[in-house]
Amino acid sequence: MQELIDRIRREGHVLPGGLLQVDGFLNHVLDPDLTRRMGEAFVERLSSGAEPQVDRILTSEVSGIAPALATSLVVGVPLTFARKTVPTTWTSPLYQADCVSRTKGSRRTLSVSSERLLAGERIWIIDDFLARGETLRALINIVTQAKAELTGVGVVIEKTFEGARQRFTSLDVPIVALAAVDEIHEANEDQAMQIIVRSG
Amino acid sequence: MQELIDRIRREGHVLPGGLLQVDGFLNHVLDPDLTRRMGEAFVERLSSGAEPQVDRILTSEVSGIAPALATSLVVGVPLTFARKTVPTTWTSPLYQADCVSRTKGSRRTLSVSSERLLAGERIWIIDDFLARGETLRALINIVTQAKAELTGVGVVIEKTFEGARQRFTSLDVPIVALAAVDEIHEANEDQAMQIIVRSG
Repeated sequence: MQELIDRIRREGHVLPGGLLQVDGFLNHVLDPDLTRRMGEAFVERLSSGAEPQVDRILTSEVSGIAPALATSLVVGVPLTFARKTVPTTWTSPLYQADCVSRTKGSRRTLSVSSERLLAGERIWIIDDFLARGETLRALINIVTQAKAELTGVGVVIEKTFEGARQRFTSLDVPIVALAAVDEIHEANEDQAMQIIVRSG
Repeated sequence: MQELIDRIRREGHVLPGGLLQVDGFLNHVLDPDLTRRMGEAFVERLSSGAEPQVDRILTSEVSGIAPALATSLVVGVPLTFARKTVPTTWTSPLYQADCVSRTKGSRRTLSVSSERLLAGERIWIIDDFLARGETLRALINIVTQAKAELTGVGVVIEKTFEGARQRFTSLDVPIVALAAVDEIHEANEDQAMQIIVRSG
């Protein structure tokens, strides 16, 4: 997705610890046209010209919601977003799985109400980043608990140098990244910040 | 918005402490068609047939993001969502304001990077609920810190019995609710659960 690659090159910031900041269009500000086209790209690439095999989209709060909703709007199926804290209003049994947040540095438990992800549903997981694969692993665990069927994974940005994709080769479902970041380098005395990014 | 009123009547649950659970279309699951029409309704009602006076939409994570993005997609201006935790990737000065979460029962600080809300911008605040007005008050505080101009407020559901609207009469901007919940009653031995809801 060339438009996304251009935005990452122009606006991305490399921060200590191998972190990539893209607040301008993913994690703090949303650009409506770019977000809409992310949804269109996920549907096109996960369907490969055939009828989309999906009954529900699953994502995780917070920054997964926008690309997942954009996808939901194109494909016309509901979206469930896993919560990182369980609201006091929840009374149904939960599907839960732990993951470690890279940007927050803490362990989180993702929770989905058992009423909101149903056995037999075909699920696309859509998220903002694929880095170490912690969130994806937790969401797949939740799909399995629900006895639903994973039929596709879409991430806006894959940080290929984290190597997460290899953890999921046994899944046998398409894993689509709209942009692949192969290398990031912080600015230092000798060189400017560098982001090596290509089509995913 | 009759469709929304019907969904609240059919799917809403009243929980102890005057809480209204609408996980089926706002706080855990999103219905793409309903969410799209929320955005269309906000734009129609906040514009009143004239050119929308808005340069940016402001909301708060988590459940404000979907109705705010739907609005952003219709009106074609960017969306900034205030964060409840400051990501380790943030390096710019922040606009911050405190509020108390009703459903979580804890004090939260909403944060917006000073790069992501600019002086002079005309701002619509869009959120899921107007209950006691804590989040709205904090977001208005952030708009003021940024020297931006509030030109409209839209909430999906106003719990009128909490009386928050009176706190904001001095604002002199339209406050639009897509549905107004006037009374909620928990189920008890003598009566079934009751939700009194009308057009906002």
